[in-house]
Amino acid sequence: MSSWVPGAAGSGYDVDHLPYGVFAGVGDTARVGVRIGEFVLDLAPLGAMQQMRSAGLFRADTLNPFLAAGASGWQRTRDWVSDLLSQPQHRDLVEPFLLPLDEVSLRLPVSVGDYVDFYSSEHHAINVGRIFRPDADPLHANWRRLPVGYHGRSGSIVVTGTDVRRPRGQRQEGHDVVFEATSRLDLEAELGFVVGGGATHAPVDGAALGERVLGVLVLNDWSARDIQAYESVPLGPFLGKSFATSVGAWVTPLAALEAARVALPEQQPVPASYLRVKEPAGYDIDLEVWVNDTLVATPPYATSYWSPAQLLAHLTVNGASLRPGDLFATGTVSGPQRDQRGSLLELSWGGTEPFALADGSRRTYLADGDVVTLAASAPGNSGGRIRLGEVSGRIVPA
Amino acid sequence: MSSWVPGAAGSGYDVDHLPYGVFAGVGDTARVGVRIGEFVLDLAPLGAMQQMRSAGLFRADTLNPFLAAGASGWQRTRDWVSDLLSQPQHRDLVEPFLLPLDEVSLRLPVSVGDYVDFYSSEHHAINVGRIFRPDADPLHANWRRLPVGYHGRSGSIVVTGTDVRRPRGQRQEGHDVVFEATSRLDLEAELGFVVGGGATHAPVDGAALGERVLGVLVLNDWSARDIQAYESVPLGPFLGKSFATSVGAWVTPLAALEAARVALPEQQPVPASYLRVKEPAGYDIDLEVWVNDTLVATPPYATSYWSPAQLLAHLTVNGASLRPGDLFATGTVSGPQRDQRGSLLELSWGGTEPFALADGSRRTYLADGDVVTLAASAPGNSGGRIRLGEVSGRIVPA
Repeated sequence: MSSWVPGAAGSGYDVDHLPYGVFAGVGDTARVGVRIGEFVLDLAPLGAMQQMRSAGLFRADTLNPFLAAGASGWQRTRDWVSDLLSQPQHRDLVEPFLLPLDEVSLRLPVSVGDYVDFYSSEHHAINVGRIFRPDADPLHANWRRLPVGYHGRSGSIVVTGTDVRRPRGQRQEGHDVVFEATSRLDLEAELGFVVGGGATHAPVDGAALGERVLGVLVLNDWSARDIQAYESVPLGPFLGKSFATSVGAWVTPLAALEAARVALPEQQPVPASYLRVKEPAGYDIDLEVWVNDTLVATPPYATSYWSPAQLLAHLTVNGASLRPGDLFATGTVSGPQRDQRGSLLELSWGGTEPFALADGSRRTYLADGDVVTLAASAPGNSGGRIRLGEVSGRIVPA
Repeated sequence: MSSWVPGAAGSGYDVDHLPYGVFAGVGDTARVGVRIGEFVLDLAPLGAMQQMRSAGLFRADTLNPFLAAGASGWQRTRDWVSDLLSQPQHRDLVEPFLLPLDEVSLRLPVSVGDYVDFYSSEHHAINVGRIFRPDADPLHANWRRLPVGYHGRSGSIVVTGTDVRRPRGQRQEGHDVVFEATSRLDLEAELGFVVGGGATHAPVDGAALGERVLGVLVLNDWSARDIQAYESVPLGPFLGKSFATSVGAWVTPLAALEAARVALPEQQPVPASYLRVKEPAGYDIDLEVWVNDTLVATPPYATSYWSPAQLLAHLTVNGASLRPGDLFATGTVSGPQRDQRGSLLELSWGGTEPFALADGSRRTYLADGDVVTLAASAPGNSGGRIRLGEVSGRIVPA
């Protein structure tokens, strides 16, 4: 099944995908749209014309009202849009509401409530352990028992295309502590999961991911490794992360990732009861990490240890509330191979092994002016591949 | 100067105080009010009648629109309310808008964006160090260099009077890891600072506290010590804190705490340039910790090492954004004396020294059914003392 929209077939944004975002034309108010090929479908006026009850949800500058509608509302909307964009008889009706992507600007799609970041990739955690504690077990005792996580700063989340200013902070330099711009600015290739449905304090069952998560976006959790290292005993990362987190503009529905579901790696010891999930609980999503014009890594999310259903079950098991717009992320995704590492900390092995970019320059950490782009793709439900929205950001000087 | 409102003089809620909150009568919509004695002044209709430009800010179910108005708006409102409630000639005008507190319900006053909790009391940090690392320096190397902090869960913040359910989680028990209700449920006596003004990424100067903070409230950062201990390596506290944080219903304006300003304890080494503040930067606020009918501790905030201006300067120095409704808190406040410890972890010295309540029962940590109440008071600008709004919560079984 393919769309009648010119160019949609084979673009990664055909009717088997249909990600949600927020856009505005020049001088327009921002509103909700769905991407199809190189166009965005303007849902609010089309929904109003068709007397859709949900049309008002799209006349909003964030996805939050739509997120609050919950899983049945998401499915109705997906069915409606899929029908409009796949059946040629709707072309005359729909075409006036298709806007070329290059004529709109994309906004932060979600007003994020709480942002939780996890540490769920085993290969990443082992690499970090080997770099910082070479003589100890690379995984801490709790790591295979529960998904380790922490709260990040939701107010610092920005949309793709936003510049990122190199942060200043206190860091150890030899025996001194200095207050300077970070010299170890890093990227982290991650996926973020967008929560919807009603506000609740109820723990989420490990089988209920689709009831509480609309979809996935690509996320770069920028990190200043030297600031982070100095500050984080004993309460964890703070200013080394809170200056910026970039996300893609398009939320790929979980419904578009059915064909991407894969079994988790074996989990030993068997997790606590609340962390047991119905397989296949993993997702076969391939990430790409670009620094300027060089593809520096291709982390495979299928190798992640903890699944998103387990992350969500864990973060709510203590009765913590969920609200529409909450976001939880995987933490850096790394695979077993050297070229599958999702951070420069790992790619440069703690700054000790510089690597080359296509222009011949070398990097350990990011330089001012560098542009980092994360991309991702996955098997689509119609046999080809879908492309998740990229997230890109340029480093500007402190 | 005292109010004409009956009972206000000497109540801790006279015209030298005037804290802001959100209230609703039976069947009413919630809106912003100011407390005077045992009444709440209904600002929205009074402001509309007087054609105040700001009246619309009070027709809201959170303080957030008023917070966004910034320091000049806060001062104009304070001057207006103070005049109405202190000059007897306004009595006929104002009296219809005074509602007895026992006829309204109090709501969570702020929709919190990001919630940051610090670790700013030296006596608390030293106690924790001595309990958990008796053979090491009780303060970590970074502690006197910067205010250690982390992000908490804003969605779990609840208003005084809300029950708190004992959380379940994974914890170490001997050689085993079990998933059970916490057996080390604790309170933390803290103060929280409510941020307003426009959204910005600009670092806040250490002298600008009054420009960016409307005021202060009493905060109980409930903690499950066993869950926290097991999960928090290496990324810090998560589920051991995120199940609930309780706050008082009334935000005491910084303008009401001018007479409470005191010099900080000496800071050695001299802090980095961005952490230097104009003295007096501390606040002489006395906390009270009640478990059921027993006053178990009286932590003095004047003994805190880091001042609120330094906390705010630190949390923004890396370019992290501020939004109206952000909240940052002190962390547990403890004084040098045994009866000034602001957590049961300290009062029971890690659970090893049970203490008695007035009914003869003994505690290390909290029991189901216990009611914890935190109160606070400070010198008022008119010579007496003002009382900050209490925060209270009852423990219900897992």
